[in-house]
Amino acid sequence: MKKLVDSPDTVLAQSLDGFCAAHADLVVADADRRFVRRRTPTPGKVALISGGGSGHEPLHAGFVGHGMLDAACPGQVFTSPTPDQMVEAVRAVDTGAGCLFIVKNYEGDVMNFSMAADLCDAGIATVITDDDVAVERSTWSTGRRGVAGTLVVEKLVGAAAERGADLDTLAALGRRVNAATRSMGVALTSCTVPAAGSPTFTLADDEMEMGVGIHGEPGRRRVPLVGATAIADEMLTAIVDDLTAPVGTEVLLFVNGFGGTPLMELYVMVDAARRILAARGLKVVRHLTGAYVTSLEMAGCSLTVTALDAELAALWDAPVHTPALRWGR
Amino acid sequence: MKKLVDSPDTVLAQSLDGFCAAHADLVVADADRRFVRRRTPTPGKVALISGGGSGHEPLHAGFVGHGMLDAACPGQVFTSPTPDQMVEAVRAVDTGAGCLFIVKNYEGDVMNFSMAADLCDAGIATVITDDDVAVERSTWSTGRRGVAGTLVVEKLVGAAAERGADLDTLAALGRRVNAATRSMGVALTSCTVPAAGSPTFTLADDEMEMGVGIHGEPGRRRVPLVGATAIADEMLTAIVDDLTAPVGTEVLLFVNGFGGTPLMELYVMVDAARRILAARGLKVVRHLTGAYVTSLEMAGCSLTVTALDAELAALWDAPVHTPALRWGR
Repeated sequence: MKKLVDSPDTVLAQSLDGFCAAHADLVVADADRRFVRRRTPTPGKVALISGGGSGHEPLHAGFVGHGMLDAACPGQVFTSPTPDQMVEAVRAVDTGAGCLFIVKNYEGDVMNFSMAADLCDAGIATVITDDDVAVERSTWSTGRRGVAGTLVVEKLVGAAAERGADLDTLAALGRRVNAATRSMGVALTSCTVPAAGSPTFTLADDEMEMGVGIHGEPGRRRVPLVGATAIADEMLTAIVDDLTAPVGTEVLLFVNGFGGTPLMELYVMVDAARRILAARGLKVVRHLTGAYVTSLEMAGCSLTVTALDAELAALWDAPVHTPALRWGR
Repeated sequence: MKKLVDSPDTVLAQSLDGFCAAHADLVVADADRRFVRRRTPTPGKVALISGGGSGHEPLHAGFVGHGMLDAACPGQVFTSPTPDQMVEAVRAVDTGAGCLFIVKNYEGDVMNFSMAADLCDAGIATVITDDDVAVERSTWSTGRRGVAGTLVVEKLVGAAAERGADLDTLAALGRRVNAATRSMGVALTSCTVPAAGSPTFTLADDEMEMGVGIHGEPGRRRVPLVGATAIADEMLTAIVDDLTAPVGTEVLLFVNGFGGTPLMELYVMVDAARRILAARGLKVVRHLTGAYVTSLEMAGCSLTVTALDAELAALWDAPVHTPALRWGR
């Protein structure tokens, strides 16, 4: 296993300590590292809390800050956080306006966030993300998986929360954004969970996993590697056919690296995706490109398309100031 | 070769097209893709121009924008840009105050930027970066190599240029920042240049290249892989011994991913580096963590330390608004 770690047992703790030290102006973890929260809470604002297995950095802790999350609960690598983590996060960040849980659709995450909600006195609402069109059910999920589109939900709902929207409004917005968002991924290589020490799956030198999940779960099919444009075409055909947005719809295109793919290749995918979406009558008006929802060092990428309207575009443009995503004034 | 490309012949053009489309609010390329420049020039400001072989994205085009570069000239992968690229960039961005070339110390880059300077009527000054302490000369360089510290030079000089400093002042500042900066890298895997199609070098499953260059050039020694703290200790010992900063000096710590290393591991390195620097009496007061000066999909990282004073810290904090680096107001 070729990794920059001291031990699989300490990698999460050391990584969180490094993260919190590097971004001490923005975030702080509790003493037991059960959650990472904003250093400065906003009284009266609905608190947004997400979390899930680690190994997808910067998701979710990298999105804690103004305009996105109030807290994130990191599980061990590819393992759900436990309910006590979310309970403690709620205690730390709820200022009386309630908390919105944003949860990727994996059985462990959904169960543990649900248990946490039951244990809390605070008002809790939950948005489940399930943007992955690759498969209708998976190893770890009943129904579609929540993948990179979760970032879009966190960004748009986070902007609305900053403007003072109430819990019910934010939950409805989160479901609307999730419903307007579709993703699909492709893996060129596997990834290695530190505690396992060997690759999660194997791919031959000329193979790719089309529709892969963000833990290396199987996708639609394992096929010979083809060119970037052909890969983008297969993914976007699945996405656009499922999204059924009218011709002329304005969209956000999010090209997400899985951790081991150079930025140069992600921009090749941007170029290919723009051409394909234009041919389908969709107009790309916003972009996000980079490794934001990763699978350790997996090579490959996902494409996410969100159908925008004026409200969603304005929420996307709203200021955000987190360790991993920053713009606006 | 497992890459998201259509063809090695078109990867650079497609990638630049995707990049310019994704960041059309900030940058534009000329029709022949010889340079990427700011969409909106600032009259009367000294123009900062950098460039070099591609494959190190987001360096340099990702740093074109307010507070950093005015233009970047992308060569083919790991190949110097040609003098005509810089000549055309000068024509496009010089507004009469002159141009500063920021050039990494590789023979091809130094020669071609020098030829370009001779061909220009505009006032040109040049800063050569050579922050890599790993080796005193290398395959492609006479003297030390310019690596991730180049970003620090571009950021600090860029901030000073935005404040109206003149060409001589900026050139002197660039040399001062370079002199206050040291870097060293480690590779856990090789990388594959698209046009070559096979890895640049090979490492056994238990080996690392200590002191590797950003093109996969040999470093100090090839040794068995050890833990993150031991790796950080060897690199920082070389860096700190060479920097000879007084105990108590405040520093910027830049942990840079080479393209194939997860953010989780980079933060493990941050944690290790902070402990080691504290033991050496240096105080980390600024951080940058991420894949900013890459070597395609190479796994590994570099550590960069810059000794700060009040002026340099203020220049680091100054607003920057580029595709890859954004903060401030």
